Amino acid sequence: MVAEVELIFDVPRFEEKLIVDALRNMGLNIKLTNVKYSPLTWGEAPAPLSLIRTISMQRAVYSASLREAVGVKTINCYRAILIAGDKILTLSELKKNGIPFPESLVAFNPEAAEKAGEALGYPLVDKPPIGSWGRLVTLVKDHQALKTVIEHREFFQSQVIRTHLIQRYVNGGDRDLRILVLGEEVLGGMRRIAGADEWRSNVARGGKVETIKLGDELVELALKVAKVIDGEFIGIDFFEENGRYLVNEVNGVPEFKGFMEATRVNVPEKLANHVKLILRK
Amino acid sequence: MVAEVELIFDVPRFEEKLIVDALRNMGLNIKLTNVKYSPLTWGEAPAPLSLIRTISMQRAVYSASLREAVGVKTINCYRAILIAGDKILTLSELKKNGIPFPESLVAFNPEAAEKAGEALGYPLVDKPPIGSWGRLVTLVKDHQALKTVIEHREFFQSQVIRTHLIQRYVNGGDRDLRILVLGEEVLGGMRRIAGADEWRSNVARGGKVETIKLGDELVELALKVAKVIDGEFIGIDFFEENGRYLVNEVNGVPEFKGFMEATRVNVPEKLANHVKLILRK
Amino acid sequence: MVAEVELIFDVPRFEEKLIVDALRNMGLNIKLTNVKYSPLTWGEAPAPLSLIRTISMQRAVYSASLREAVGVKTINCYRAILIAGDKILTLSELKKNGIPFPESLVAFNPEAAEKAGEALGYPLVDKPPIGSWGRLVTLVKDHQALKTVIEHREFFQSQVIRTHLIQRYVNGGDRDLRILVLGEEVLGGMRRIAGADEWRSNVARGGKVETIKLGDELVELALKVAKVIDGEFIGIDFFEENGRYLVNEVNGVPEFKGFMEATRVNVPEKLANHVKLILRK
Amino acid sequence: MVAEVELIFDVPRFEEKLIVDALRNMGLNIKLTNVKYSPLTWGEAPAPLSLIRTISMQRAVYSASLREAVGVKTINCYRAILIAGDKILTLSELKKNGIPFPESLVAFNPEAAEKAGEALGYPLVDKPPIGSWGRLVTLVKDHQALKTVIEHREFFQSQVIRTHLIQRYVNGGDRDLRILVLGEEVLGGMRRIAGADEWRSNVARGGKVETIKLGDELVELALKVAKVIDGEFIGIDFFEENGRYLVNEVNGVPEFKGFMEATRVNVPEKLANHVKLILRK
Repeated sequence: MVAEVELIFDVPRFEEKLIVDALRNMGLNIKLTNVKYSPLTWGEAPAPLSLIRTISMQRAVYSASLREAVGVKTINCYRAILIAGDKILTLSELKKNGIPFPESLVAFNPEAAEKAGEALGYPLVDKPPIGSWGRLVTLVKDHQALKTVIEHREFFQSQVIRTHLIQRYVNGGDRDLRILVLGEEVLGGMRRIAGADEWRSNVARGGKVETIKLGDELVELALKVAKVIDGEFIGIDFFEENGRYLVNEVNGVPEFKGFMEATRVNVPEKLANHVKLILRK
Repeated sequence: MVAEVELIFDVPRFEEKLIVDALRNMGLNIKLTNVKYSPLTWGEAPAPLSLIRTISMQRAVYSASLREAVGVKTINCYRAILIAGDKILTLSELKKNGIPFPESLVAFNPEAAEKAGEALGYPLVDKPPIGSWGRLVTLVKDHQALKTVIEHREFFQSQVIRTHLIQRYVNGGDRDLRILVLGEEVLGGMRRIAGADEWRSNVARGGKVETIKLGDELVELALKVAKVIDGEFIGIDFFEENGRYLVNEVNGVPEFKGFMEATRVNVPEKLANHVKLILRK
Repeated sequence: MVAEVELIFDVPRFEEKLIVDALRNMGLNIKLTNVKYSPLTWGEAPAPLSLIRTISMQRAVYSASLREAVGVKTINCYRAILIAGDKILTLSELKKNGIPFPESLVAFNPEAAEKAGEALGYPLVDKPPIGSWGRLVTLVKDHQALKTVIEHREFFQSQVIRTHLIQRYVNGGDRDLRILVLGEEVLGGMRRIAGADEWRSNVARGGKVETIKLGDELVELALKVAKVIDGEFIGIDFFEENGRYLVNEVNGVPEFKGFMEATRVNVPEKLANHVKLILRK
Repeated sequence: MVAEVELIFDVPRFEEKLIVDALRNMGLNIKLTNVKYSPLTWGEAPAPLSLIRTISMQRAVYSASLREAVGVKTINCYRAILIAGDKILTLSELKKNGIPFPESLVAFNPEAAEKAGEALGYPLVDKPPIGSWGRLVTLVKDHQALKTVIEHREFFQSQVIRTHLIQRYVNGGDRDLRILVLGEEVLGGMRRIAGADEWRSNVARGGKVETIKLGDELVELALKVAKVIDGEFIGIDFFEENGRYLVNEVNGVPEFKGFMEATRVNVPEKLANHVKLILRK
């Protein structure tokens, strides 16, 4: 092993470039691995620590698992990426640990999904357990609209995409709070508000961001979420409803461009410093 | 909770019917949950123990996770089903624990897959990480054939199905040993031999079975595999090559019809008894 | 050639059984070809006339084209099945021949589909050009709902299914008139009315049927539709709006079970007789 | 109508840019329609003649059909694009007109495809009826390899892609002759020879090209192929085997960059001149 830290990626975004710069500024020796062009093995690893930064969640899970298998420290570990990457597994871990989220049901088939809609009432939110940037996350206003969504979803080949996570639409569901956690520290938080002609607050969908001040309750909750899924560097989205925080989703390979703009926190520098501390231990 | 044990299924097979009979013979009160018709919730569970028996691996993982979230004992737990259900995650856990398997590479893209083929040589076996009954598991004889497989696979929508697990073709790869583990006990083993006009030994593909006597080495290895993935009731497929055992695949919701015929072991009775012992603890 | 008429099918329905019985009663020698089990060739054909009755529209088109290539008379010919099987091609042939249909637009991409929605206003109907029994035919009430449909549709692999045929929702769009044409004759007509909890009138979706008396205008229009697509045995669906008939869809391999119940017309006997007359010419 | 000619496209390639330049040099007034951004209607057309140049075959068929419906002259017409775009329909039209092609079978299902392989023997070529640049066109060396292809293909959602066109592998199948026809004229021809590590001769797959001199037989055959499918500007691929020409495929929206390099024929100028002559009639 000649490198100190490996960056595993597929499509390098702005974030990955910032991370590389920050690691280099810290004097760290980096190995860049683009998994689109090189097969991975369960053989010797190129560095004692791997940062997992592929856009594809599945590639991230697999890359982390292969590295961990040969003793590499990964950020994040595959368990964190896998659980954060699957909204049903996320909710199960939250439930197990008493962390609140909106009332939710899971349906594997059209008949079950229709029953879930009846049980929950409208409006509701229907989403597949896997997917980024709010993809296929649908605000459903009535039974006829749910049937349309079910019929379209049923056509997909993937059993996972055909699975329905059906959730109560939270009051103020067009905005949420994104918190970023690194190790034991909460790096900051921002409010995301859906843009015009869109109810989802994702930055990739035109959501506007503004920094927020974090109270103790939210800080503790964010650290707890990170802890129960073994997340070391993760993003957490909260709804705020009647003064109560509900977890919406967790992100195991967080983007942080919008976050940096809103909060002025130098995320890649924080991350590089965190890596250096681990390596120096 | 009125029931003592819940059976979660989607399409009831011969195996599920035998399990229900065995549980009833044991005097246990059963709740049958067909997840195709009923949504699942993170609310109260119908029984303190759930047997997870859906044909769909994803449904099994989700069902188990929802039950565990509210304190239910599951057989198998979602971690075991998930790891066994994904051949890449399986190998990572095996590697981490020093359990041998055939030389393998992982490729996410055509270019990486071609390189993996060159690195490993031919014949080789190419499979997606997910899938049952040997589906899309391909014996690849030369580079041209690998390109054909890559080109077809690249067309699938699912990132997981587009992922290549590329493995050395083991001498005698048309036969394997299937071992069934329940709790701390190895229930028995059988050899599966591929049928005519097929190199895969899956019973669903016409593979023939015969019982085998298990040596201490194989028993210990099987128990170790079960343990590292938290498997309580699992099937393990081994290759035997030059007197050495290599794990091929692990099954987290094992079928056992062919196994019962080959070994005369009453699997459902053993399983029902195991359930009863747990409940009586 | 030993047979006088070939019946080409894939999954035999009630209708195909009735057709076989009627042909036999007429004393005709039948060759049954299940295209799921036998490859087709451009070689010698088994009979001078082939009835094309596969459920799959694509199989019907291909089967007819192969038979016509070697001089076989087909009912329907591949041009009729292909045009009837594609709602965009149907409308183009109607337009070319001055036959009225609801105001419609075609969009190949999300951006174009959103513009089509703005141009047409709401409610509207969005459907892919191919598909039976109203599959994915969606009543869209507002712009948000259209965006949901577009986003789901965009996920499909098939370019055809990603294509949007966007149509004005006709007053009384939950009912239509189904007319059956055979050769130069209109066999009868029925009204289909959408069942409870459904706006589509398809019998397969619970639509109710009742026989209707056909006026001269509708008879002439139906014969004209059949003629412009070279249809010999076809079903035509009309909307009736403000005393005006608008073509909705055309069916090139028509089901007729519900039609027989509503109209008491013996369709298979009529068809067998038609076949006999052609053969005796 | 202000424009004299409309160019309908989706992704402008080198060829479309050359066509636009040539039309402008000819003094023609052009309307550019990118169908990715604008819905199409059955209303008034922007010009009396439309050149159909989308990369997507389906978009080309639909665009041409909509324009023809309102009296526009299209190059090519939708019938030509549709038949050329579907290899099974192409062969049916060739057969009907006595034009030779390699021995071929059509199979809709795995069982039928295996029988087709047995009937034809190996090596054979298996392709779906639709697809450009040789996509999924597979050289199959033995029965085991055919089973692999069948199993992969069976997984696709599209009925068309699951359809097998199975053809005898022609001696010298790694090279073919590409002829370009415009109106009543053969513009020239070239030989395409598969590149290293590839048996398909497509230029997009690294095939090398060289100009050829065309004999009367080939010229007549090419004009006949164009005529039977109503093709006005089409590419035709021939195999040459034992001094005999066999049609391989026909292209209804031909690319011609490689052709221009090989033959030095100014294709866009020829095309623009052809358009001008039609408009001036």
